[in-house]
Amino acid sequence: MRILVVNPNTTVAMTRKIADAARQIASPGTEIMAITSPFGPASIEGYFDEATSLNGLLQAIHRAENYDAVVIACFDDTGLDAARCLTDKPVIGIGEAAYRCAAMVSNKFSVVTTLARSVPALEHNLARYGMAHQCVKVRSSEVAVLDLEDNNPAACRKIEAEIEAAIADDKAEAIVLGCAGMADLADSLSQRYQLPVLDGLACAVALAESLVRLKLRTSRLGGYASPPAHKLQLAFGSDPVAA
Amino acid sequence: MRILVVNPNTTVAMTRKIADAARQIASPGTEIMAITSPFGPASIEGYFDEATSLNGLLQAIHRAENYDAVVIACFDDTGLDAARCLTDKPVIGIGEAAYRCAAMVSNKFSVVTTLARSVPALEHNLARYGMAHQCVKVRSSEVAVLDLEDNNPAACRKIEAEIEAAIADDKAEAIVLGCAGMADLADSLSQRYQLPVLDGLACAVALAESLVRLKLRTSRLGGYASPPAHKLQLAFGSDPVAA
Amino acid sequence: MRILVVNPNTTVAMTRKIADAARQIASPGTEIMAITSPFGPASIEGYFDEATSLNGLLQAIHRAENYDAVVIACFDDTGLDAARCLTDKPVIGIGEAAYRCAAMVSNKFSVVTTLARSVPALEHNLARYGMAHQCVKVRSSEVAVLDLEDNNPAACRKIEAEIEAAIADDKAEAIVLGCAGMADLADSLSQRYQLPVLDGLACAVALAESLVRLKLRTSRLGGYASPPAHKLQLAFGSDPVAA
Amino acid sequence: MRILVVNPNTTVAMTRKIADAARQIASPGTEIMAITSPFGPASIEGYFDEATSLNGLLQAIHRAENYDAVVIACFDDTGLDAARCLTDKPVIGIGEAAYRCAAMVSNKFSVVTTLARSVPALEHNLARYGMAHQCVKVRSSEVAVLDLEDNNPAACRKIEAEIEAAIADDKAEAIVLGCAGMADLADSLSQRYQLPVLDGLACAVALAESLVRLKLRTSRLGGYASPPAHKLQLAFGSDPVAA
Amino acid sequence: MRILVVNPNTTVAMTRKIADAARQIASPGTEIMAITSPFGPASIEGYFDEATSLNGLLQAIHRAENYDAVVIACFDDTGLDAARCLTDKPVIGIGEAAYRCAAMVSNKFSVVTTLARSVPALEHNLARYGMAHQCVKVRSSEVAVLDLEDNNPAACRKIEAEIEAAIADDKAEAIVLGCAGMADLADSLSQRYQLPVLDGLACAVALAESLVRLKLRTSRLGGYASPPAHKLQLAFGSDPVAA
Amino acid sequence: MRILVVNPNTTVAMTRKIADAARQIASPGTEIMAITSPFGPASIEGYFDEATSLNGLLQAIHRAENYDAVVIACFDDTGLDAARCLTDKPVIGIGEAAYRCAAMVSNKFSVVTTLARSVPALEHNLARYGMAHQCVKVRSSEVAVLDLEDNNPAACRKIEAEIEAAIADDKAEAIVLGCAGMADLADSLSQRYQLPVLDGLACAVALAESLVRLKLRTSRLGGYASPPAHKLQLAFGSDPVAA
Repeated sequence: MRILVVNPNTTVAMTRKIADAARQIASPGTEIMAITSPFGPASIEGYFDEATSLNGLLQAIHRAENYDAVVIACFDDTGLDAARCLTDKPVIGIGEAAYRCAAMVSNKFSVVTTLARSVPALEHNLARYGMAHQCVKVRSSEVAVLDLEDNNPAACRKIEAEIEAAIADDKAEAIVLGCAGMADLADSLSQRYQLPVLDGLACAVALAESLVRLKLRTSRLGGYASPPAHKLQLAFGSDPVAA
Repeated sequence: MRILVVNPNTTVAMTRKIADAARQIASPGTEIMAITSPFGPASIEGYFDEATSLNGLLQAIHRAENYDAVVIACFDDTGLDAARCLTDKPVIGIGEAAYRCAAMVSNKFSVVTTLARSVPALEHNLARYGMAHQCVKVRSSEVAVLDLEDNNPAACRKIEAEIEAAIADDKAEAIVLGCAGMADLADSLSQRYQLPVLDGLACAVALAESLVRLKLRTSRLGGYASPPAHKLQLAFGSDPVAA
Repeated sequence: MRILVVNPNTTVAMTRKIADAARQIASPGTEIMAITSPFGPASIEGYFDEATSLNGLLQAIHRAENYDAVVIACFDDTGLDAARCLTDKPVIGIGEAAYRCAAMVSNKFSVVTTLARSVPALEHNLARYGMAHQCVKVRSSEVAVLDLEDNNPAACRKIEAEIEAAIADDKAEAIVLGCAGMADLADSLSQRYQLPVLDGLACAVALAESLVRLKLRTSRLGGYASPPAHKLQLAFGSDPVAA
Repeated sequence: MRILVVNPNTTVAMTRKIADAARQIASPGTEIMAITSPFGPASIEGYFDEATSLNGLLQAIHRAENYDAVVIACFDDTGLDAARCLTDKPVIGIGEAAYRCAAMVSNKFSVVTTLARSVPALEHNLARYGMAHQCVKVRSSEVAVLDLEDNNPAACRKIEAEIEAAIADDKAEAIVLGCAGMADLADSLSQRYQLPVLDGLACAVALAESLVRLKLRTSRLGGYASPPAHKLQLAFGSDPVAA
Repeated sequence: MRILVVNPNTTVAMTRKIADAARQIASPGTEIMAITSPFGPASIEGYFDEATSLNGLLQAIHRAENYDAVVIACFDDTGLDAARCLTDKPVIGIGEAAYRCAAMVSNKFSVVTTLARSVPALEHNLARYGMAHQCVKVRSSEVAVLDLEDNNPAACRKIEAEIEAAIADDKAEAIVLGCAGMADLADSLSQRYQLPVLDGLACAVALAESLVRLKLRTSRLGGYASPPAHKLQLAFGSDPVAA
Repeated sequence: MRILVVNPNTTVAMTRKIADAARQIASPGTEIMAITSPFGPASIEGYFDEATSLNGLLQAIHRAENYDAVVIACFDDTGLDAARCLTDKPVIGIGEAAYRCAAMVSNKFSVVTTLARSVPALEHNLARYGMAHQCVKVRSSEVAVLDLEDNNPAACRKIEAEIEAAIADDKAEAIVLGCAGMADLADSLSQRYQLPVLDGLACAVALAESLVRLKLRTSRLGGYASPPAHKLQLAFGSDPVAA
């Protein structure tokens, strides 16, 4: 099986990190095709970045071939609904994946994300997925996405402080790391704090494999109906300006 | 005062219709600047069109000048959050405006929109705005957006049938017309059925005037913080391909 | 257009203050008719005051003439539903108005009101309007309504302390002032704390103008149907005891 | 123990019917003091009647003496919150009582009430009490309150038709009769349809006895704090006009 | 009338304490039959104990005779739904009873229970009963159920500390004691803190009397339909091992 | 990896059917250990069967060895919380699994289950998992669990009729089959109706594999803390009566 993992920002170093993390979790026989959005913002932090990353993200998915499922590797689940209109293969956002997995191993959890500006977008997603009652709090560590690249100790310490507060104050039974760039921290934090610490990317790859194995396709009735051909042509046709 | 009304699809005829409707409701002294998205889909029907209209819509707002408020003239409230990051002037979606006005003149209402594929997106918006308990049902008339251009009788009859069902079955006390293209039907339908029939565009222009008069600005704390300059530059810079 | 602003308590000095504030926000050409409830409590702080103010409030509206919209100038939105049965002109409560405007300029907000005893009534309103998820907290400053008359510094300091806590602890992106008597503080507090601070009275006047301009009438179907003539006669007839 | 049952409308015949029904359910040793509101509407059907009945209702409670609990005998639970400020004895509304009892003998229930205009007020109460998810539907039989006085067969047939629809379509496991005037129908309807049919008045009397036996008092902290003496004096003092 | 009070754990000393408390609240003429589960855990603290107590609890109810109502004397409301299938007599859990009574004497309340492991189960019950919006917080005192047997001062002090926090931080207007073993503390705590402190056992006995007097039976339509005879036979037949 | 699939009823033929279905979906290298509850009801239809199946189910899990995850093969998710206390390996219910997968391939879905008596239990689960807003309706086909054994045409036709109604009336975009015994119908129904038809057993096996691969363990903080050793000993010790 081939899973298309799309980094909806344009930072190639992050795509590489994501690809590595995805391959670590993928089953034998699962091929990870990690691609970078061809244009758009270098990191996705809040509503504006989400919006301006969409065309690049969707074009990347549209031009890809021979995949069995798509993972959108941004914790805001940018473009999830639109991507589900674009292909009947399963499409999974790493935020949604992390929340659904956390809900199966805990009664309630907290999210530790990057900047305060991202919090409302995540809270809206949680409400929409029906997870607002299981997520006690979305906590911002005030670490920028790209600062996570270096695993610098100050960034790690801020994240740890939020986890400690989540356990003590929120009575969180699990922690969801709210940024694709935190993928490599999950294991050591889980060891250290003795509770499940979930990385959305790994969750999404694992769930994508499940949906493929289940032969589930995105429904074509209702909200995820395919766009008419002329709209696809317009959006992704020969004129990249239109994209 | 000057209100920027953005048609996020590229159909100029619809922009003209929208501009006319906006001017009818605008107070003396309010100038309506109606603009058409420079690129993107010709109509917005569901998630995919929403996503692919965003860059054009945001660029149009970014390049506009000398406005006091923005109205996004698409009933899906496409790009509302992202646009609120782009300017601290009030930004109002016509869907949100219609729901909030309907809630002030009725206990509960139903929405009559175009195609079934648009319904889930509207339902998500209603839930997010806290309106799910006041909206009894989102009904699709199976009239396509662009078919509304001609005021053809078959399209009107389908819309009327849904209004009649909303009154009889949903016990709706008001009707929200769920498409910018239905703007010119509201008055006659309200007369005919003797209940408030709301057109979102008119509601949004009126609320925009209110927010301007109240000197309210979109908050810059939290989710609507301005994007950093380099991200604006990247999104709307000299290279329109990137937009 | 003429907007009837009803102070549902009997404190004439507060009516004067309310009238001034309403006139400041009203458009040129809008006439503000501010009236004081003819009998009932001198201030409205909680459920009991709400209930005992209703007959005076409704009688005042019933006897008024030549208005295009009604504003109920009490943050508890006392009598809002009953008043909507009394006239098909739009009727707006200042609490509802403030919440709906706050929701258009922020992702979430907190309310700063007077006494603890008023908090549950406001929380019930927020839930009913579908705003419970956008209002992080209703905070009481323990300043009595009538103490606000003098703009005394101790009262102001208590209000400021709650705003500071709302920003720091609630991550509120906007503040709603939860008392008609705080109307004159909104602008300076907004300047000082650099976020939207909303006064419900101004919001209600602005929204009332909008609804009038939209020619929206309160629905006569269902919950807001007109009472039969004999009930109006009984309630507001020649025998004021019955009122 | 003495239970004060207040009919908040002024129809003495209905008070008599209510008193009879209350005495049938009361335990030996429980005295029912049934009183009629001294002024206000002759029946309570919707928001306007609710509002205009409040002063009479509250005055009646205020002037009563030597009671251990209060039952407000109107299915809209008119004045429930205000009455709870007026006395620390338990105060129970017949709507709330019926819903809470229905929730203990069924998974979900439907309400059959009188006129369509009353439905939104009941729906708001259900939401506020946290019962919206257990009440499948509030059905109006289009029988006016005072038409129930004669037990006329046409009125009964309309009520039965709604019960039949509630069982078949709503999958209701119990029926709540949504009007104090339907009290005498509960037993025969329960027999006929073989499911619990609840009369709110009986439920409220029974719950009132329970709360008295439990020595529970209405909390004086927060929303139900006693009004200050001068407000009570003003509302119920020597000048009944002011009431 | 005869009320069957079932202690679903096997600690006979606790059954005795429960029986005494039940008799204190029971009306003259009400007989309390207190029985102990024949097998299962010695205390119920969380999901596992709930599950393993069910067979003993249900068998005890099944074998009981001549009762008019059942009270399940565990604050988790263990087995409430299953017991309602077993008899059409009213069945009341002490948790549900406490919440419903607290909701009639306060706007919002907090729960003080034993161990952290019990909290999620209580939170689920609150959500299911529609009480999540009225219960501000479920607080664990970290006092084990069986430590309550001795009324030891350290345990009491921990409970008091949580009550003080609930009043100050949660703005709770009433306190629900979340364990059958706290029954004897309610009165003195209510005196001390001057707000309603509710013991679920007393509430349940009082509500059971009410439902019996109302002649209400658990509905046999839908979810509480009787199990077929062969399933009862299998569960409670001659071989207690199988039970 | 080894997945323990527990049939919580005692019908060995159903265990065999479940085992076959589980093996069809399992990845190469995944071993399915299907076991039958040692005692309890022969089918699980509603609350009573759920409760009386628990001890057998939990004992079966407790005595099992060398598994990496547990699947509870009953659509009511019987004993899910208790089982999560019993092992830190992931435990997945087939109801929960189906709902979470359906939510990733559709905007909203309906459930088609067996008997009306099972519906409220499923509705409670949906609410608890936060899925109530995505599940339009739980429909009962009035086919008993054991009638599904023979794939008899009348049973199939009833299920198809409910699916057709779900598509036409509920606007369901996907169908969840609400019984482990319907496992073998999913593929053909999905083909026939051209929308995702989900079998919970397959979903649960696939998700179990995912959670194992993710090395996620059930949290030991809070509600899923391990029971103390003496309680495990009591429940599953040498004395089977205690079980």
